[in-house]
Amino acid sequence: MTASTPGIRLRHALEVLRERSPLVQCLTNTVVQQITADVLLAVRAAPAMVDHPLEAPVFAGAADGVLINVGTVSSDQATAMPAAARAAAEAGTPWVLDPVAIGSLPVRTPLAHELLALGPTAIRGNASEIAALAGDGAGGRGVDATDSVDDVLRAARDLARRSGTVVAVSGERDAILSADRTTVLTSGDALLPRVIGTGCSLGAVCAALLGAIRGSDLTAHDAVLAAHALLGAAGTVAAREARGVGSFAVAWLDALDTLTPEDVVTLVQIQEDPAGVTA
Amino acid sequence: MTASTPGIRLRHALEVLRERSPLVQCLTNTVVQQITADVLLAVRAAPAMVDHPLEAPVFAGAADGVLINVGTVSSDQATAMPAAARAAAEAGTPWVLDPVAIGSLPVRTPLAHELLALGPTAIRGNASEIAALAGDGAGGRGVDATDSVDDVLRAARDLARRSGTVVAVSGERDAILSADRTTVLTSGDALLPRVIGTGCSLGAVCAALLGAIRGSDLTAHDAVLAAHALLGAAGTVAAREARGVGSFAVAWLDALDTLTPEDVVTLVQIQEDPAGVTA
Amino acid sequence: MTASTPGIRLRHALEVLRERSPLVQCLTNTVVQQITADVLLAVRAAPAMVDHPLEAPVFAGAADGVLINVGTVSSDQATAMPAAARAAAEAGTPWVLDPVAIGSLPVRTPLAHELLALGPTAIRGNASEIAALAGDGAGGRGVDATDSVDDVLRAARDLARRSGTVVAVSGERDAILSADRTTVLTSGDALLPRVIGTGCSLGAVCAALLGAIRGSDLTAHDAVLAAHALLGAAGTVAAREARGVGSFAVAWLDALDTLTPEDVVTLVQIQEDPAGVTA
Repeated sequence: MTASTPGIRLRHALEVLRERSPLVQCLTNTVVQQITADVLLAVRAAPAMVDHPLEAPVFAGAADGVLINVGTVSSDQATAMPAAARAAAEAGTPWVLDPVAIGSLPVRTPLAHELLALGPTAIRGNASEIAALAGDGAGGRGVDATDSVDDVLRAARDLARRSGTVVAVSGERDAILSADRTTVLTSGDALLPRVIGTGCSLGAVCAALLGAIRGSDLTAHDAVLAAHALLGAAGTVAAREARGVGSFAVAWLDALDTLTPEDVVTLVQIQEDPAGVTA
Repeated sequence: MTASTPGIRLRHALEVLRERSPLVQCLTNTVVQQITADVLLAVRAAPAMVDHPLEAPVFAGAADGVLINVGTVSSDQATAMPAAARAAAEAGTPWVLDPVAIGSLPVRTPLAHELLALGPTAIRGNASEIAALAGDGAGGRGVDATDSVDDVLRAARDLARRSGTVVAVSGERDAILSADRTTVLTSGDALLPRVIGTGCSLGAVCAALLGAIRGSDLTAHDAVLAAHALLGAAGTVAAREARGVGSFAVAWLDALDTLTPEDVVTLVQIQEDPAGVTA
Repeated sequence: MTASTPGIRLRHALEVLRERSPLVQCLTNTVVQQITADVLLAVRAAPAMVDHPLEAPVFAGAADGVLINVGTVSSDQATAMPAAARAAAEAGTPWVLDPVAIGSLPVRTPLAHELLALGPTAIRGNASEIAALAGDGAGGRGVDATDSVDDVLRAARDLARRSGTVVAVSGERDAILSADRTTVLTSGDALLPRVIGTGCSLGAVCAALLGAIRGSDLTAHDAVLAAHALLGAAGTVAAREARGVGSFAVAWLDALDTLTPEDVVTLVQIQEDPAGVTA
């Protein structure tokens, strides 16, 4: 492994995303469905928000990747989500769990644990959500984290090892953890969390990249890292010309559409297995 | 009929849309509700997304036009949609069916056929959706067409004749077909399908125009054609200054707001009963 | 009370909003969830759209303010809304009722009256909705008012006195009424009602400000007035550079993000207890 390896693998992951246009099924919250679909289209994936209990498992067998986000879970979705997760697993389709605002809320919290037991390919959340899923915290303040990324790294790595999944903790810095690899990513801008759906869209782009890399020599860890890098890099570019959160959101979609894989590599900082985290 | 007739009727249809501000009820998918409402407001219609099973049929009697789009059909919507279609028919309110992603999905596919039997004023979809509704295809890839517009023209015309409705097939070129008339429209831009909801909004604007033209000498075919021309022309204008999909979507709404009927006529190409299609 | 008092109290309310970042739970319609969340983030509040019947009352106890908007009421929301209202009342959490399109629709109309009986801290609607809630009108045209603000001032003040709540009637001018105070606000721009969700977001920002002012010497009336002033002032600024409804919406979010409390004070006109209204 040379010093340039992370950059080469990142560029490769972003290239296959553009080439393969993966079909991504999203069972996600109604607040962010539009921006999630627009983000997927911007990065050259094809979105489909099929979440009826009788349709979701049928579609999961045909999709290239599936996102399950419990942000506004309804009774129907609570039935559809485990069914879609099982169908994805049977078909070998990668799927991502986003445990939005779990902790003390009585429907989504046990549902997220039920979904965790079904073996997601990756889990993405903020620090408080990951801590709650790892059994190590009571959740955050609404949809906001009250823990920092660093606070929960140990719990996140334990969760990754125990469940054999990739765990991504989003925050000022992002941490991506799997059984034997920890990556810390510095990217983005303070405006990103001030636009609704940027985090939820990240879960969808993780599913897109996991679908895109199938058959390549890239790993699920590479795919999840690439998703975080792409959305963060677009945030850095968008912030340069934004005059507030409205024009930032527009410029972010433009950047997702137009940034090349090479651009993304130059816009982010990646630290593999940093000291103190891997200890 | 002179050579300029299509342009004159198009301009007339767009003028009555601006004058009458039709009230359009949308039973549509949750992904595109916001952009659909914004598009309706931009073109001077009034949106109302009333889709509760007990409220939808009451409202359908008061609306000027109704859109039924099965894109994220829920159990409640599956009850509300036929009830709204029946109430619209009883009140003489025009209504549009958008059979999103039908083909193999087990709830929306029979629902779309049930709705078809209730006599929509117009049907709008991509080539694969129209083929599936005509009984001549298995549907597309998620919400994307895997057939071309030309592939399905015969099936679409048969569907139009059999059901006595206007059938619009959207794609790189759009085809609008009724029992004795076929129109091919060239307009728009490649960025249009890369913004979520541009197609679904088209169904809503069809309903708006169908509501607006009542009492005029314009036909349902004219109304559906005008809707496609308006949204396509705005896409052409928006693409001129877009720096990606985000700024394109913003410029598209601006163009929908500000383009005059005359502008639209100059921005599109209309071919009536082209050879090879009417054979 | 000096002539400058309204301006001083307005600035104070907007300052505490920025300092305290209130957590606002929205049980609202699916059409406007995204823009409502983006507006709350722009004004420094934290949105959470928790509306499952089993989760909504749990969350209402932790939120700083709650919005209940019946715009696309579902069966689940019709159960969740009274439960959330009761939980908010028990916890002393202020909550806002937005009776969207009530009048003749058979689910939302009795639901809104049930919610009114639970004692909202404030009610926000257009003239026809307020008239219908006051028992003095049959509702508007879909989601649009068919009455003017002036038409319904007497009914609105009676409603405010009877229910002990603050009643805000939105329109070309806004009227904010409580038992012993009437304020007329002139602000905004004609483009504001042509972007979907600007009115619904106003209800959410009322909830944010009601949450923010707790513990200060400001009143609920001050908070509701400040919400209307902030969103209207941003509309005035946005209209200066808008090229249509699309760029207006973007510039409006930018202005919500960047306007200072002082800016807002200079951009609106406030009339306290104007003659003819208080008679």
